[in-house]
Amino acid sequence: MKTMGLSDLRLVAPERFPAKEDQWMATHAQDVLANCKQHNTLKEAIEDCVAAFALSARPREWSPQVIDARTAAARAIELNEKAAFVFGSEDAGLTNDEVFACQHLVHIPANPEASSLNLAQAVQVVAYEIFLAGGGSVSKGRSEKLATVKDLEGLYSHLEQAAVTSGFHVPASGSRLRERLRRLFSRVPRLEREEVNILRGLLKALRK
Amino acid sequence: MKTMGLSDLRLVAPERFPAKEDQWMATHAQDVLANCKQHNTLKEAIEDCVAAFALSARPREWSPQVIDARTAAARAIELNEKAAFVFGSEDAGLTNDEVFACQHLVHIPANPEASSLNLAQAVQVVAYEIFLAGGGSVSKGRSEKLATVKDLEGLYSHLEQAAVTSGFHVPASGSRLRERLRRLFSRVPRLEREEVNILRGLLKALRK
Repeated sequence: MKTMGLSDLRLVAPERFPAKEDQWMATHAQDVLANCKQHNTLKEAIEDCVAAFALSARPREWSPQVIDARTAAARAIELNEKAAFVFGSEDAGLTNDEVFACQHLVHIPANPEASSLNLAQAVQVVAYEIFLAGGGSVSKGRSEKLATVKDLEGLYSHLEQAAVTSGFHVPASGSRLRERLRRLFSRVPRLEREEVNILRGLLKALRK
Repeated sequence: MKTMGLSDLRLVAPERFPAKEDQWMATHAQDVLANCKQHNTLKEAIEDCVAAFALSARPREWSPQVIDARTAAARAIELNEKAAFVFGSEDAGLTNDEVFACQHLVHIPANPEASSLNLAQAVQVVAYEIFLAGGGSVSKGRSEKLATVKDLEGLYSHLEQAAVTSGFHVPASGSRLRERLRRLFSRVPRLEREEVNILRGLLKALRK
């Protein structure tokens, strides 16, 4: 939950809580545990939410159309109000009554021959989809200056010149070296100016 | 892995394998374990792949632009050849050398304040994205006959009639009951014929 920016954990009639395992399993998320709420019934746990999404790998006889985790996450974010994602126990999942208490039934798309994820994995996938639906993305990291078209053309001339001067390429030979080099470097996504400079530096050094 | 239809597990220099824990942790995926390959080095493990995607929560100094898990999954599927997703150990993740041996660096979008997922969770999220990129979806479940416009109009007339006959609604009162009922039922996604029939059956029964 914490890795995906979620903090409102609600436990329904936990067998043991707090327990020692909670502490070491949630090493970096002690705050989520410390702030978690306990409820006697699912109904009580979700009554302040505008929608509850039940997670289950099994279709239910009377259930409405099943939606997938990505769609559910998008709908929850769209609501722009408190929405609950409801998970059952590791062993038994949600009972029919528990699914019935929710407005939506959600499946995580999976191999039909082994469609039941562990509880912790299911929570992670759903939390991840909620994070993405809410606009989450990877942090940008380094931002390097990208090569401009002028930088690229400089590289191409330099390469061509080097190929001819070194005798590797005979201009009228029809080997299409120019085109091939262009084709290669144009496929590099987000080519950086620094990278072009490295290549040109190398060419320069080799020609000495 | 198995829940997402993946079967080609490769272990690089595992400390202990097979171990007892493997058996009970992979209850329904003994076949994945039984068919897994062991390699002494990462290089050897990925040499028959056309691309290797390194998973890491940490940006690396010299690394190329980081891509997110969804983009990586789409690229891997596009290749339409064997591609590797490379995960480090639970404690230490991938070393710089190991990331360097791969062609892509992949992050799972996450809370910047707690961006490091457990190994098992990271594998699940990536496997899930690969499954979806490969066209996986939730199985359709029951397919019910949807209500047609004619069914809906039948329901609206029936409701209106019932509201008037029962004295609940006075036609010229300006309460906009008709519009409100239409607005309500038009928001039900994939309304089923059976559901319309239930509502009409109820109305009919109430009027007796």
